[in-house]
Amino acid sequence: MEANGAIARDIWHEQGGDAPNLLGRREQIYIHAAQLFCTKGFAATSMANIADAVGITKAGLYHFVPSKEELLFTLMTFSMDRLEADVIRPAATIADPIARIRRIVRGHLESVTQVVTPVGNPLTMILEEQTGLSDEKAAIIRARKSAYFQFVRSTLNEIKAQGHMQGLDTRVATFAIFGIILWLARWHRPDGPLTTAEIVDQLTRQALRTILPDQLL
Amino acid sequence: MEANGAIARDIWHEQGGDAPNLLGRREQIYIHAAQLFCTKGFAATSMANIADAVGITKAGLYHFVPSKEELLFTLMTFSMDRLEADVIRPAATIADPIARIRRIVRGHLESVTQVVTPVGNPLTMILEEQTGLSDEKAAIIRARKSAYFQFVRSTLNEIKAQGHMQGLDTRVATFAIFGIILWLARWHRPDGPLTTAEIVDQLTRQALRTILPDQLL
Repeated sequence: MEANGAIARDIWHEQGGDAPNLLGRREQIYIHAAQLFCTKGFAATSMANIADAVGITKAGLYHFVPSKEELLFTLMTFSMDRLEADVIRPAATIADPIARIRRIVRGHLESVTQVVTPVGNPLTMILEEQTGLSDEKAAIIRARKSAYFQFVRSTLNEIKAQGHMQGLDTRVATFAIFGIILWLARWHRPDGPLTTAEIVDQLTRQALRTILPDQLL
Repeated sequence: MEANGAIARDIWHEQGGDAPNLLGRREQIYIHAAQLFCTKGFAATSMANIADAVGITKAGLYHFVPSKEELLFTLMTFSMDRLEADVIRPAATIADPIARIRRIVRGHLESVTQVVTPVGNPLTMILEEQTGLSDEKAAIIRARKSAYFQFVRSTLNEIKAQGHMQGLDTRVATFAIFGIILWLARWHRPDGPLTTAEIVDQLTRQALRTILPDQLL
């Protein structure tokens, strides 16, 4: 888990084609597989496609994962592990709910920008995949996503209990914040005009403005 | 085009299974096909799957569309036609950019809520589909989406030229607003605790607050 956190801090910009040396072979497999699943679709992607994209043999790929289904579950788990290490656990130690939501929003945006490919961040997008997992494994991922949603929503509930967010439903407000953050995974590109820090700063400010007045940002 | 606008105002809540009578057969095919493409993936969905979902024979389906590829393009075109009729053309007549962005945000949110299935609004989600179209047809859809993005961004540019949105990049701000609106297509459900009007009101307010102070909403 801590190792995942360290890997996540190495930004991977796939601008040409060669696999980066910053990441271990396992993480390269996750990113290439997620990218293929997001663009071609899970059903249309073969283990041979993934092996080709990573630049290893099919036998080499099977050395790492026994099946395409297992690979999907493993990389979704990897993505949720990163979110927990980089965002949820650090934020959970913050008592003040406004300081906590600031940490969540900025941390999650930074996490999304840590992987950037020509199609965005496939490790974030893959968490919306609706097929390919057994019911049991789909339930495990769903429960982890739901726990994160409740963590954010309960933070907004605390903020509302302090007298802020008048007239705002905290469930809808949580989805609004997630919309800003998760949409970034779809449009972020390696060659954009702004730096990653500028994008994260602006979206943090915009996301917090959906729930708080300017003087509390 | 005007007919599409009229159809779009009939909300379809698929709560059980039967196809609604509000929509024509062609629109039922679009919604069922988009839902299958979004959940199973385009490649994994067959024309037989779509015919089954609509409740017609495969021969009947081929009476409406010659191929799965043509169906994908036709329903993406249908979805963009609705957006143009319901949002872009009415908003384009509004001279004041703040009034115009209000109309765009509210109109697009209302448009997203007009189709609601157990997986959200597949007619909105399908516009992110990355495969299945020929290069030529993909370019047509991409150009229409891009024209809409530029319409919204140029509205924000006008607002910024009036002295608002200090320190905000209008490209990133456009993506933030789209994130709130388009994420709704993923989480909106027929049986949610709030009414559609309550959701649209709150998200309109939250999306506008990302760029404007409260007194200008």
